[in-house]
Formats: sequence, structure tokens, C-alpha cells
Amino acid sequence: MRNLRLDICYDGTRYRGWQRLKEDDSSLQYKLETALSRILEEPITVSGSGRTDAGVHALHQIVNFHCESDMDESDILAKLRRHLPGDIGIYSCESVSPRFHARLNAKTKTYRYRVWNSTVPCVFDRRYVYVDAEKLDVGAMRDAAKYMVGTHDFRCYCDNRSKAKSTVRTIYSMEIFETDKEVQFFITGNGFLHHMVRILVGTLLEIGHGERKPGDIFGQKRADMGRLVPASGLCLMEVTY
Amino acid sequence: MRNLRLDICYDGTRYRGWQRLKEDDSSLQYKLETALSRILEEPITVSGSGRTDAGVHALHQIVNFHCESDMDESDILAKLRRHLPGDIGIYSCESVSPRFHARLNAKTKTYRYRVWNSTVPCVFDRRYVYVDAEKLDVGAMRDAAKYMVGTHDFRCYCDNRSKAKSTVRTIYSMEIFETDKEVQFFITGNGFLHHMVRILVGTLLEIGHGERKPGDIFGQKRADMGRLVPASGLCLMEVTY
Repeated sequence: MRNLRLDICYDGTRYRGWQRLKEDDSSLQYKLETALSRILEEPITVSGSGRTDAGVHALHQIVNFHCESDMDESDILAKLRRHLPGDIGIYSCESVSPRFHARLNAKTKTYRYRVWNSTVPCVFDRRYVYVDAEKLDVGAMRDAAKYMVGTHDFRCYCDNRSKAKSTVRTIYSMEIFETDKEVQFFITGNGFLHHMVRILVGTLLEIGHGERKPGDIFGQKRADMGRLVPASGLCLMEVTY
Repeated sequence: MRNLRLDICYDGTRYRGWQRLKEDDSSLQYKLETALSRILEEPITVSGSGRTDAGVHALHQIVNFHCESDMDESDILAKLRRHLPGDIGIYSCESVSPRFHARLNAKTKTYRYRVWNSTVPCVFDRRYVYVDAEKLDVGAMRDAAKYMVGTHDFRCYCDNRSKAKSTVRTIYSMEIFETDKEVQFFITGNGFLHHMVRILVGTLLEIGHGERKPGDIFGQKRADMGRLVPASGLCLMEVTY
């Protein structure tokens, strides 16, 4: 049984997210599994490094799957590229150790969140940003971001009601870059809870707007924190193993 | 009668081009005229610096129109931004001399043509490039581009059958930039014939593929030149007056 790794990217605009929930849906997982099952002529189940939500993009997502087929990796790559729509791209397809698992072995993940911070219209990248044209105090947001880095219980940054698993996560870095029209957030951590990155950014934006103090970033419950910013601005950038 | 100038941009993907041909169509001109007529409550006709074809984009297009209304420019700008769809952006709206005409006064126009020259899929900018993954000899294309610069009869680079007007145009510069995945053509001239930029690029691509010699760029007729490359890669970048 071979284990194959795919490095892929996608524009998540028209998908219901990574995870397949039904037999036939508009998830990225379903799109990939359907294509691979047809090409390899056997039923394929893929694992992604993480489950991006509806509308979230990936510049670099990692996937693995097992198969019986002995088709060349380069043939699989070429056929997959021909088979998939223009909003899903495949960088590479390679054989990996049988023990490699895209999700379980992931050590860090980096997400970027793009805020279009200008009254000048964003036409060409409009599907990949969240527009917030009001003035932002980037210094205050950077102060707050420092407190977010480290190992913390991020329960108040999670929209998932299930309390079964641990809500402790480690954020390794949280950087904020400013250009003349944009503010971009880069967040690297060992894993993220449901909606965590988008609530972190929503909380930082409240700080940027002067509606919240930079020290006020760990409340008791979800309602104490900022709002969930839209999926369009979010993109999975890198996964390390 | 006031004369107003609009600086705008648009993603041309879903439009039939700049020019309105019927009373009610999917042209950019019609979209703008409808919005302005409603906002100003008088019939408005706009002039663009040039008529971009179906699917062609503009990062910076210049438009002017006359009106009786005394509404503030800033109000017109704000209302127009609210009224127009996300694929049309307005940078500014300002009063100009009554004699200013966006098309007749244009001195130079600069177009960019983007060729995605990589087997790595282009997912996020897929609407704004033409994909040609085969190896290109950029040096040979630059040699040929030098011969295109200057004042020439570009009849063989024109898809319009009408012979009434002059087909002499001046190209001031033609530069080719290379990145790891893209080749971009920047062409500045005093005006361009119908499809001229896209046939120039199509001819240069044949040279880049070694199918045509760098000196073979002025034939007798349209059929002697390269093919028309797709509209998606083309973008109006700048108009000077």
C-alpha cells in the first residue's frame, strides 16, 4: 500500500470548506477524492493537514492518501491537474513513508489574514481580503499580539461547543505587516481551535479601532472576545512536519 | 455644464467590454452610465480613454462626463462606490476643464499582458493571466520587441476590416519582465488598433517558442502575424494626457 503526499493550493470562495460531510458535496475533500478515485480506479480517502472552513483559502495545504495503484507520481500529478477545476492547484505528488499522516504529523501551521484597510476599492483581490477601511492603530495591535503568543487556554477564542478536548494551544508567532493599503496578520501555532484565527483577528481589530485595550485579550467566554471576521481574508500559508 | 473626470479600475471578466452597443447590455460603459444617471438624476453619457475589449481588465482607466447637477464630487464618489458592483472600483471623481476629453486628449496608453509561464498552477490570479507553460526565449522576444518600437504601419496587427482610418501608430516602449513564474509585457504607445496589443504579444510568443525569427515581425497582412492571445491576460495600466 503506497502513501502519497500532495502539496496543493485552492481558492476557497465557492467551497463549503475542506471537510466532506456527505457522500456528494461541494467540499474540497470530496473534489479531490472524486478526482483521485477516478484516476486511480479505486476508492480514495484523503487526509488534509487541517480542515479549512467554508470560504477559507490555502496557498499551501498538505494532503496524504493511501492507494494500491502503481501509477507514476508524475502521471497522477498530470492527470489530477487536468481533472481538477481552475480554483484547485496541485504543486506536487510524491511517495512518502507509510507512517506519514498530513494531519497527525503536522507540527506547525501558519495562517495569513488580509485586511484591506483603504477607501481605495479592492477590485482584483476582492475574494481574498476582508475590507475594513477605518483607521487602525497597528502599534496597539502589535502590543496585544505579543500577549497572544505562547501556550494558553484559548477556550474563549473557540466557536465549537464541544468541551471534550483540550483548548490549550501554543502560538509561536503573531506578526502584523502594514502596506499602504493593507494590514496582514501572520499567525503560526501548533494547532488552532474552530474559528480561532478569525476571532483572534476580530479581537485585534477592536484593539486597532480603540474599542478594546491591548491587555484585554483573555476573557472568560467566547462572548467576551471580538467578533468572527469573514472567511475570505483567511489563507493557510504553510504546514511544517 | 460641469465636466467630471473619474479614475477607475475594473475586473473585465464578466463584461462584454467597455463600449455600450445597445441600450441595455453588460458593458462597463452601460454599468457606469446607469449608476451615474440614477445618482445625478439626469441622463449621463461617459467617454472612456479607450474601448477595452470583452474580458480585458483596467487597473487605471480614465473617464469623463458632463452633467448639470451641482452634487459635490465627494458625494458622487461615495454614492458611485456604493452603487457599483465589486468588480468596478472608483479611485477618484474630480472637476476638470470643460475641454478635457478622456479619449481625444489621451497622449499615451500603457498596457500590460501577463503570461503565466509555469507548470505550477495559477489559482489566485487565474482570471488575470494567460497560461503558456512552455519554455520561452525571453532574449529573442526582447530583440523582436526592439523592432516594434517606433512609428510604423501596424495594419498587419489589426483585426478590424475597416481601412478608412490610418493604421500608423507609435510605440514608445515595449518592455518584457520575467519573474520565476511569469513573463509580463508592458507596451506604451500613442494609441492601439483593434486587438493590436494581443496580436503583438501572440507574435512575440511565437518568437519565444522558436517558431518565428525575431526579425519577422512586419508581414503584409494579418494572417502573416501571430495569433490573438486571450483577453484575460490584458490590462490597461495608465493613460497620460
